[in-house]
Amino acid sequence: MDIAAYMADVGQQARQAAAAVARSTTAVRNRALLATAEALESARDQLATANAIDLERGRSNGLDPAMLDRLELTPARIDSMIEGLRQVATLPDPIGEITNMTYRPSGIQVGRMRVPLGVIGIIYESRPNVTVEAASLCLKSGNATILRGGSEAIESNQAIAACLARGLAEAGLPETAVQVIKTTDRAAVGELITMPRFVDVIVPRGGKGLIERISRDARVPVIKHLDGVCHVYIDSHADPEKALAVAINSKTQRYGTCNTMETLLVDEEVADDLLPLLADAFQAKGVELRGCSRTLAVLPDLVAATEQDWHQEYLAPVLAVRVVDGVDGAIEHINRYSSQHTDSIVTENYTRARRFLTEVDSASVMVNASTRFADGFEYGLGAEIGISTDKIHARGPVGLEGLTSQKYVVFGDGHVRS
Amino acid sequence: MDIAAYMADVGQQARQAAAAVARSTTAVRNRALLATAEALESARDQLATANAIDLERGRSNGLDPAMLDRLELTPARIDSMIEGLRQVATLPDPIGEITNMTYRPSGIQVGRMRVPLGVIGIIYESRPNVTVEAASLCLKSGNATILRGGSEAIESNQAIAACLARGLAEAGLPETAVQVIKTTDRAAVGELITMPRFVDVIVPRGGKGLIERISRDARVPVIKHLDGVCHVYIDSHADPEKALAVAINSKTQRYGTCNTMETLLVDEEVADDLLPLLADAFQAKGVELRGCSRTLAVLPDLVAATEQDWHQEYLAPVLAVRVVDGVDGAIEHINRYSSQHTDSIVTENYTRARRFLTEVDSASVMVNASTRFADGFEYGLGAEIGISTDKIHARGPVGLEGLTSQKYVVFGDGHVRS
Repeated sequence: MDIAAYMADVGQQARQAAAAVARSTTAVRNRALLATAEALESARDQLATANAIDLERGRSNGLDPAMLDRLELTPARIDSMIEGLRQVATLPDPIGEITNMTYRPSGIQVGRMRVPLGVIGIIYESRPNVTVEAASLCLKSGNATILRGGSEAIESNQAIAACLARGLAEAGLPETAVQVIKTTDRAAVGELITMPRFVDVIVPRGGKGLIERISRDARVPVIKHLDGVCHVYIDSHADPEKALAVAINSKTQRYGTCNTMETLLVDEEVADDLLPLLADAFQAKGVELRGCSRTLAVLPDLVAATEQDWHQEYLAPVLAVRVVDGVDGAIEHINRYSSQHTDSIVTENYTRARRFLTEVDSASVMVNASTRFADGFEYGLGAEIGISTDKIHARGPVGLEGLTSQKYVVFGDGHVRS
Repeated sequence: MDIAAYMADVGQQARQAAAAVARSTTAVRNRALLATAEALESARDQLATANAIDLERGRSNGLDPAMLDRLELTPARIDSMIEGLRQVATLPDPIGEITNMTYRPSGIQVGRMRVPLGVIGIIYESRPNVTVEAASLCLKSGNATILRGGSEAIESNQAIAACLARGLAEAGLPETAVQVIKTTDRAAVGELITMPRFVDVIVPRGGKGLIERISRDARVPVIKHLDGVCHVYIDSHADPEKALAVAINSKTQRYGTCNTMETLLVDEEVADDLLPLLADAFQAKGVELRGCSRTLAVLPDLVAATEQDWHQEYLAPVLAVRVVDGVDGAIEHINRYSSQHTDSIVTENYTRARRFLTEVDSASVMVNASTRFADGFEYGLGAEIGISTDKIHARGPVGLEGLTSQKYVVFGDGHVRS
């Protein structure tokens, strides 16, 4: 197979389909989403058969149990793909919204209209349900999509692709509006991320290694999410009850998510009082604490943290703890070690809260709230294709709006410039 | 000189300075702008001396007259740099604006705060006044800047840099908040565009060749402006008077700008009536017309346009003319040949205007208005660092907002996620 020729063909088809999707009405795109849901419903047997092939091959290739679990399309996961499509259909259509329409002194009227980006390339790993999730958000926002899933899920992804094609056809949209790459050859990724004439943006979803590799090699803009080294800072003016609640929830509500706290910072003025309470609460949850030297002065039984711990995204019941000199020390630590994902201060002090909000340079900055809230659904975006740790284009949780652009629209009445 | 080490040092200084600028108040940044204006005012002699060296070297290196003209810092151009600084000081500060603050069902309050991008790299060619223009917009929007001007303007740029340094120092900001690269070695550009840890975005200003080269090699996001192949489409339902006014103004108000019309499209239903009137008007202005075969059928004396003409950004008194089959033909031509900069329809027909607005995929889409309006000042942005033909981040004229990002701010009262 000539991968470059195949991918150029996929790209060209996507570019053509993108124009049709951009022109389509809200009703047509919603129809495609709902028809895909119906197609998945009636293809449960085919999905199970395809998935069984992937699982069987995965087992014989020695995939680890966690990866096999992510690969599995259980009936409940098919239910949730179907439910997801229906939810996306109910979201407001972002496309066509015109904002800031104003008259200018010249007499022209100028505003901005929200438009699709065009063609979005999604690169992801083992979970086949991402195929539906990503395709539905791109379609809702008027874009064409090229999907490249993990090679271990190729049969499942192709079975899902067939349902998407049926849904699109039923709504009268080109089936090429969503294309799932048919080859597992890695060269296809290399092509996908270097075709700026066919692809407008790449959204990689997966581990830090994958995303770093793609960002380095891409010749197309990448909306990327590297890691989540999130902090909670407990200020000396914190309400101790809120401090405990926020710290415990930020770490223990779920361990494996990018918005989980990985380092706890405690103002030295309250370290003696609060660290023992925090240690008890975390130990009751089974969280291992690793402390700086000043933390160890209060809690001598802890493991000592090393420089590496401040950089670490544990994604596990392990927490680094550091005593800092007030809000200045906290901001300094965070702007040095944070991955600029989500950081929270607990304080009752107005000026310190305001300084933290302004000076911490992260995608989400919070006061008296758990870092676990950093999420497209919690923020009211209605959906989330990922969380961007970039500053360009989209920052923080990326919903439908992040998959769009704005163009200027100008209304005149024969106006000319003088 | 070790260029890599020098540029890493510049980058590191910029990154540090960016934090100080981001923290600074509106008043401090405005003070720096006004103090720079004063410094330029009192450095007129030094500017003239430095510029004379550049001009002398340029002449002996055989620079062409147009380039020498762009290089010259006349007293009027110094006036306009000073005036520009004062105007930027009067613009509203975009930083810190919080929008869309809403309560979520969980009880948290979520909004978005406008923040600086961080460090902006500007790469430009001969005009030394760009140094002040770009630095002032970046500073106003809370960013640090690294500027790389043309080697032919190095003395002038360093003299301007000294004024910027004085202005920054007077306002108590680090002088490294604006750095003008001191070497003319081309390797410095290569370093600047591949330092993502120090530089957040690159804005190149110059010819298409420069910008394509930078976009290809950059490892940092680029806000780019390639070319302006702009169209006016005269629909059969156009008011002929408006059609003539818009077409003439779009082409002839200025020939060398990116928002100048380069191809005129005429609906075949009105070609017989309008083409002769248009030809007379353009010929009176000295514009050479190049027509498609259907245009030549009406105006047999014209030069025949070739495929190349539809792609051409003339920047000169030359205009390609094509007869198309209604709004469908116009949209098809534009989406194929336009550089997605600015395209305008002249029509009285509601549905055709609406279709053109929706289906033409360009940064600015207009109805009954001259393409020459596509400009940051005309759109009310107060300033313009360039016009983006990208869809990611900023599209169309880029003002202060394009030099910023938004972060999420979350207010709680000890809220945790359940």
